[in-house]
Amino acid sequence: MTETPDSASAGPGAGGVFDAAFLARFEDLLAWRRDVRRFRTDPLPDDMLQRLLKAAHMAPSVGNSQPWRFVTVDEAARREAVRASFRRANREALASYSGETASLYATLKLEGLSRAPVQLAVFCDGETGQGAGLGRRTMPEMLAYSCVCAVNTLWLAARAQGVGLGWVSILEPETVADALDVPASWRLIAYLCMGYPAEEHLDPELERAGWQAGTGLDARWVRR
Amino acid sequence: MTETPDSASAGPGAGGVFDAAFLARFEDLLAWRRDVRRFRTDPLPDDMLQRLLKAAHMAPSVGNSQPWRFVTVDEAARREAVRASFRRANREALASYSGETASLYATLKLEGLSRAPVQLAVFCDGETGQGAGLGRRTMPEMLAYSCVCAVNTLWLAARAQGVGLGWVSILEPETVADALDVPASWRLIAYLCMGYPAEEHLDPELERAGWQAGTGLDARWVRR
Repeated sequence: MTETPDSASAGPGAGGVFDAAFLARFEDLLAWRRDVRRFRTDPLPDDMLQRLLKAAHMAPSVGNSQPWRFVTVDEAARREAVRASFRRANREALASYSGETASLYATLKLEGLSRAPVQLAVFCDGETGQGAGLGRRTMPEMLAYSCVCAVNTLWLAARAQGVGLGWVSILEPETVADALDVPASWRLIAYLCMGYPAEEHLDPELERAGWQAGTGLDARWVRR
Repeated sequence: MTETPDSASAGPGAGGVFDAAFLARFEDLLAWRRDVRRFRTDPLPDDMLQRLLKAAHMAPSVGNSQPWRFVTVDEAARREAVRASFRRANREALASYSGETASLYATLKLEGLSRAPVQLAVFCDGETGQGAGLGRRTMPEMLAYSCVCAVNTLWLAARAQGVGLGWVSILEPETVADALDVPASWRLIAYLCMGYPAEEHLDPELERAGWQAGTGLDARWVRR
């Protein structure tokens, strides 16, 4: 099974704790992850995408259903259909704002669709039999959530390799599914741009641009 | 902002690549993560949960909306209401299977609600103004997906510290929201059991129990 590694390489040290150096670097990775929208156009090394998708494929999934379906998009006409969908959705989004907010929105860099060498769509197969329905009777959204776990895992694995990833959600999901000619039971979860970043930043692009700063953890944690 | 670390500790080495030792250990972490359902009852160290939630709070979110709301559940009556919801949902799930599948389902260990020292509900605030709607006009589910990224990040951070985490989805989401007395705009994304694991395994519990083995990556990757 893909998610079971060789015993030689698997598992942490005694007591199940990764060492302090690893923990510090892992926190660096979380802080430095970022949504990347400015890409160099040079390709990734041959085996990089395979390695990253193997990491994503180790994500948790409800009932071990592994409902994610990875679609790498290389054909020019399909990429153009996705870009066209972005342009439409973004035009409508812009029209929904007014005044200074609209002016600011218009300046934002929101995707890297024209330059990212790798484009990856992640779909959820809503009709998969794998897992036999376990864990999703009262929360059917668990299938989609499992796919999001795969995306988040892929993101961290990519950034650890110095590869940038940007999640584009200003898209018409059904149009993208049509453009990629996938089965009717597959629903778009994420459209991802990947490649080496043209710039590195510690702060989120949207914070740097003055759109939205973050809020502290304390305001997001309540006790019951 | 919480997600911006001190410059002294932030960022990878030159070229944006974490070193080979880190990468190998990170892949170990992904492989070893597991959904933990068998917990020791001793508490986590005082500052552990705070540290783990800080990590989760660094997760990506659409428009920097940070829509996750963390609720730690300590009161006995609330915990019992959650357990009762599990018992009902699990009884109905069992009734939906028949024959050998039902017999096998009845033997599965699906949650650690009676022993896990920490219980954490993660909600999505569907009415947050943070992010000003950016990135979720055509895909409103992006708010919930952002919360799932926080859960997945928390999961990896916990496991890196030797802390087990199990995601319980056999629950009635509205009943749990009522039991925890949260605002009406908050939707349950995940109910998590956390604590030190009583056992460690490399293979998923559901695979070991014969419910569902995994499928290789090749079957999940198509080219367009």
